[in-house]
Amino acid sequence: MQRIITIRTDKTNGLYDITSEVVSLIKSSGVKSGIASIYARGSTAAIMIQENWDQSVQNDVVTLLSKMVPHGIWEHDRQDNNGDAHLKAGLVGASETIPIINSGPGLSRWQNIFLCEFDGPREKREIVVTIIADN
Amino acid sequence: MQRIITIRTDKTNGLYDITSEVVSLIKSSGVKSGIASIYARGSTAAIMIQENWDQSVQNDVVTLLSKMVPHGIWEHDRQDNNGDAHLKAGLVGASETIPIINSGPGLSRWQNIFLCEFDGPREKREIVVTIIADN
Amino acid sequence: MQRIITIRTDKTNGLYDITSEVVSLIKSSGVKSGIASIYARGSTAAIMIQENWDQSVQNDVVTLLSKMVPHGIWEHDRQDNNGDAHLKAGLVGASETIPIINSGPGLSRWQNIFLCEFDGPREKREIVVTIIADN
Repeated sequence: MQRIITIRTDKTNGLYDITSEVVSLIKSSGVKSGIASIYARGSTAAIMIQENWDQSVQNDVVTLLSKMVPHGIWEHDRQDNNGDAHLKAGLVGASETIPIINSGPGLSRWQNIFLCEFDGPREKREIVVTIIADN
Repeated sequence: MQRIITIRTDKTNGLYDITSEVVSLIKSSGVKSGIASIYARGSTAAIMIQENWDQSVQNDVVTLLSKMVPHGIWEHDRQDNNGDAHLKAGLVGASETIPIINSGPGLSRWQNIFLCEFDGPREKREIVVTIIADN
Repeated sequence: MQRIITIRTDKTNGLYDITSEVVSLIKSSGVKSGIASIYARGSTAAIMIQENWDQSVQNDVVTLLSKMVPHGIWEHDRQDNNGDAHLKAGLVGASETIPIINSGPGLSRWQNIFLCEFDGPREKREIVVTIIADN
């Protein structure tokens, strides 16, 4: 089964928890054991598995990446002034694949699935979820 | 086929080679051609494909990440004092997917599969391996 | 279906667009909906999804990684003098999984698939593409 999750982002840089949407898709797929491949469309966005106890780790991710990849010093900035956003997206990566165990996501207690926005706000970000059974 | 590999870690930061365990699972699955999806449970651990000729690259990975992500300066440290561990895990990523070729792992000569521990030691780290045929 | 793409690289550090080769494989597989798992063989290479409007973002990726991971200061340099190449490959990651939608790649308008070379030039770099339907 394959579905596209659509979200709106309201910050230039921010993490958006899409775990509940992915869990719903896994349940409706009827797949008991397998994988869910999660893919961020757009070369200034990415997927990260991360803790969501509160907002702190999400803020720290934004802080770290802004230090590692400063804004405004890249060759690509002459086109779009968003070279840093592309670099952050490339480092974090467009895809993660999570296991499906007992008809649910095989995440640990504190793992959640995030869309990372690096060039927002955007009216529409698309995440493609593809669910495949292992038999 | 899906199985969980369990390992014990003995350092705060360290890489642990799980290649032989993954190779055994691929062989016992009977899958000749396809993929093995490898997933680290726990938001302070990650999966990295890396050389294992000797310990040097593993040490270098720990050194690099400790420079890039210093300990003790993150918002999340107020909760658990392990903000750096979450950030390292998010950068490296929770999953890698390797090809299965001729009933074995499609790794090159020097590629091995590592669990990256960033908040150890831990009595139990779980890695979920899901094997799927391509036909 | 599983195939190996082979390319030649002509720089020490550089990104090489393999999108058209992957698109051809997806088309010839006959798979309408599913995933394509893309894997770089060699522990000094990696796979990155990135924009290819012009050469600028690719140059920026090389510049950023050279700043983050300087050459010549690593323990592994005593063996091969390429410790930085291994570290860059580990950070970017050996695999990405993209969705297959309507018999084509589920990339967005500006997303392309790149082999990242960090220890070239090489006569032969191999990328394994494994295509799996979601039904």
